[in-house]
Amino acid sequence: MAKIKKQPRPKAQTPKGFQDYFGADVTARAEMLNTIAGVYHRYGFDALETSAVETVEALGKFLPDVDRPNEGVFAWEEDNDWLALRYDLTAPLARVAAQYRNDLPSPYRRYAMGPVWRNEKPGPGRFRQFYQCDADTVGASSVAADAEICAMLSDTLEAVGIDRGDYVIRVNNRKVLNGVMEVAGLSGDEKEGERGIVLRAIDKLDRLGTDGVRALLGEGRKDASGDFTKGAGLADEQAEVVMGFMVAKRDTGAETVARLRELVTGSAVGLDGAAELETIAALLDAQGYGPDRIIIDPSVVRGLGYYTGPVYEAELTFEVTDEKGRPRNFGSVAGGGRYDDLVKRFTGQEVPATGVSIGVDRLLAALRAKGGMDQTAVGPVVVTVMDRDRMSDYQTMVAELRNAGIRAEVYLGNPKNFGNQLKYADKRHSPVAIIAGSDEFDKGIVQIKDLILGAEIAKNATLEEWKDRPSQYEVPRNQMLAKVREILDTQS
Amino acid sequence: MAKIKKQPRPKAQTPKGFQDYFGADVTARAEMLNTIAGVYHRYGFDALETSAVETVEALGKFLPDVDRPNEGVFAWEEDNDWLALRYDLTAPLARVAAQYRNDLPSPYRRYAMGPVWRNEKPGPGRFRQFYQCDADTVGASSVAADAEICAMLSDTLEAVGIDRGDYVIRVNNRKVLNGVMEVAGLSGDEKEGERGIVLRAIDKLDRLGTDGVRALLGEGRKDASGDFTKGAGLADEQAEVVMGFMVAKRDTGAETVARLRELVTGSAVGLDGAAELETIAALLDAQGYGPDRIIIDPSVVRGLGYYTGPVYEAELTFEVTDEKGRPRNFGSVAGGGRYDDLVKRFTGQEVPATGVSIGVDRLLAALRAKGGMDQTAVGPVVVTVMDRDRMSDYQTMVAELRNAGIRAEVYLGNPKNFGNQLKYADKRHSPVAIIAGSDEFDKGIVQIKDLILGAEIAKNATLEEWKDRPSQYEVPRNQMLAKVREILDTQS
Repeated sequence: MAKIKKQPRPKAQTPKGFQDYFGADVTARAEMLNTIAGVYHRYGFDALETSAVETVEALGKFLPDVDRPNEGVFAWEEDNDWLALRYDLTAPLARVAAQYRNDLPSPYRRYAMGPVWRNEKPGPGRFRQFYQCDADTVGASSVAADAEICAMLSDTLEAVGIDRGDYVIRVNNRKVLNGVMEVAGLSGDEKEGERGIVLRAIDKLDRLGTDGVRALLGEGRKDASGDFTKGAGLADEQAEVVMGFMVAKRDTGAETVARLRELVTGSAVGLDGAAELETIAALLDAQGYGPDRIIIDPSVVRGLGYYTGPVYEAELTFEVTDEKGRPRNFGSVAGGGRYDDLVKRFTGQEVPATGVSIGVDRLLAALRAKGGMDQTAVGPVVVTVMDRDRMSDYQTMVAELRNAGIRAEVYLGNPKNFGNQLKYADKRHSPVAIIAGSDEFDKGIVQIKDLILGAEIAKNATLEEWKDRPSQYEVPRNQMLAKVREILDTQS
Repeated sequence: MAKIKKQPRPKAQTPKGFQDYFGADVTARAEMLNTIAGVYHRYGFDALETSAVETVEALGKFLPDVDRPNEGVFAWEEDNDWLALRYDLTAPLARVAAQYRNDLPSPYRRYAMGPVWRNEKPGPGRFRQFYQCDADTVGASSVAADAEICAMLSDTLEAVGIDRGDYVIRVNNRKVLNGVMEVAGLSGDEKEGERGIVLRAIDKLDRLGTDGVRALLGEGRKDASGDFTKGAGLADEQAEVVMGFMVAKRDTGAETVARLRELVTGSAVGLDGAAELETIAALLDAQGYGPDRIIIDPSVVRGLGYYTGPVYEAELTFEVTDEKGRPRNFGSVAGGGRYDDLVKRFTGQEVPATGVSIGVDRLLAALRAKGGMDQTAVGPVVVTVMDRDRMSDYQTMVAELRNAGIRAEVYLGNPKNFGNQLKYADKRHSPVAIIAGSDEFDKGIVQIKDLILGAEIAKNATLEEWKDRPSQYEVPRNQMLAKVREILDTQS
């Protein structure tokens, strides 16, 4: 008889680039989303939840005529249709704004939160699924909408626990940049290549400094390793305009705007952009959002290909240590801007829109790095099992604790080895263990073990003053709840 | 010159079988998930969030050697690996329990909530993405774990707003059913076909009644339309055993178990199953979960192919009217059971596990159908814009309201047509509108419109007592907040 070949066992593995989140990591994120939703809601935004799956056609950015339109997204063919997981929350919003345009209020203020997926090469700290939390106003052409989003972003960051002074929101305007390009003689389709190099150079100001950027605007730049990056080849006077723009930030918004006006003199779109920034600065000032929270900063060029007006970015300014122990600024945790052409893809009609996206996982990491978040969640009170036949008595105990709002459970593993039960309580970070065997039941008592104090005593066992401190108490059964409460109160 | 062919516009459409959720539908679900998580947490369960994507290999149920393993799931090939969207929360748990088995506490109590995806033909009320909310205990062989899940399910249903008496949790045991099959002479691989017909017949008891099921156990059954369904072909004495099992429910758990014992006399596995049900019933009784909440009911045969021991199901017992206005029972909203072989797929070692899955969207629909859920969310207070240049004053007003915890916004659309602003407030279900133009600013006052009362007055305009009731108030600017609060208090 032929031997039956055994099926190999499946591998128990998280797919590459994805992650599993346990316990406090899940609840901390849920709490943060809840807090953010609270601020968004208070600002008049309504919740929207679209499905994870969209048609590739609606998502856009990908051509429908390539065989496998999966660059950057997870996509598959289904009944002759290409479907894909959403890569952000803005593309689905544009689809919704077009699809329900006759039913939605206008302006439509919506917030959305949930995972998005990117089909990118996974790297350290970079995952293929991560959370975003967006708020957008669709149908408001006034930059008051942009100012409001910046103010709301500031409120949100403080609501989740980032102190004032530990963040700054930088605001810029794509139109001013367009004006600068115009003044520098870089308008027109044929200059698209140069503009691209200029944009990427500005974006590197943080890393390369002004000299490095200046080199990239001219002939090019040789880095420390000797590699040469070709520059935009601007003439000196052209480069000076761009350099002037980049360092145009002054102490106040009004001064910065005045400086920008000088730089874009002669460009209608540039002056329009400066006026918008002036309005935004004035609105924010009037509401008390001063430069300690929100500043006009021309060096911000985030995702400019996509935006048509104001852009904004929230940066955390405190230092954290990276995985190699080096101090570094945490950097950007949120950003957004005005995109007036997104709904137009569907309807042909221009619909003004502006909005922000918060990188929830990055913000959580920042709070954790700063120590502003309690990382060990308290486990449940564990009622141990000394006598298997007393299960319903143990269940009655946990029911009593739960009804009093105390997290509690009976040990449900094999109760034979009592040491394992205490090890389990330890692994769960349980604050208290309850012990009752037939002796205790006969006497009408329970043993209550303070596990936090017990661990403390064990750690300090050599010190005189810790030696004889008890961490276990014997109390009448009807005083169990009171004693547990007392211990939990002492611990917290 | 050749005409440039215009790209057709993409269609703004939710993909087939998926759904968009707006406003109160999103927040009601979030609140429900939060409430359920609270109960699960209090019972000692820890949160787990796995990604939406799993390898097809880890998900199981699908053969890795077929070209396109997408039956029932959304799957695609990625770097020579098949990935898929999870179709439930249990398969990912089994993967996690195997992958982290050296680090997780044992027993491992975890809860998980989130969307799952099914690649099925969409139908009315049946969507390809829906929410589940699961709690499972992995590594506990004691049926105390099953009893606990049933108790927790009962607590959860009441916590989300299903009154006691409006639901019942039915508990059965797969082992008892195996025992019945044994006694009826239906054991063994060669009888698999008959057993399948018997299972499906029992599952139809609700719809066909005892006569219909009896027919299916014998030669077969002709339905009203004349279609004939072939039966299991059991002899009378075999069929009687099965029929006796199906109607074995008595007034109390103890009596039902006694009846089941009679039916499975001679079958070791059957008696074992009856003993387990007895233990479960005793534990639940001791904790006060009587037959008004949880009953032993042998007619429950949910997903029996999958389970290895106790199975349970929560059914809502109140009547709702269906889309055609006919009264019907709402039916099942949650179910689960013991599945001792799931982790074994990965590790080769048997790991006992039991758990429940709540169909969150169905439960929400039930609460809505019952009227136990407020469906119109209150919109924000809308500060209208009479004077475009006063935007920062309007923003100061909303800031004042928001800081007092009142949801508020400035109208950010084109302010030219004032009627549109009030129509907007109406569409948003706004309770209050604030009106201030240059007149008001000069006098230091604001107009406050009670929109709910205004609508009421408009509706009852012909009645004498409504005629002269004002719904708009003029108050000094510094009394705006107090007046808005007063109106909101009257409305609620």
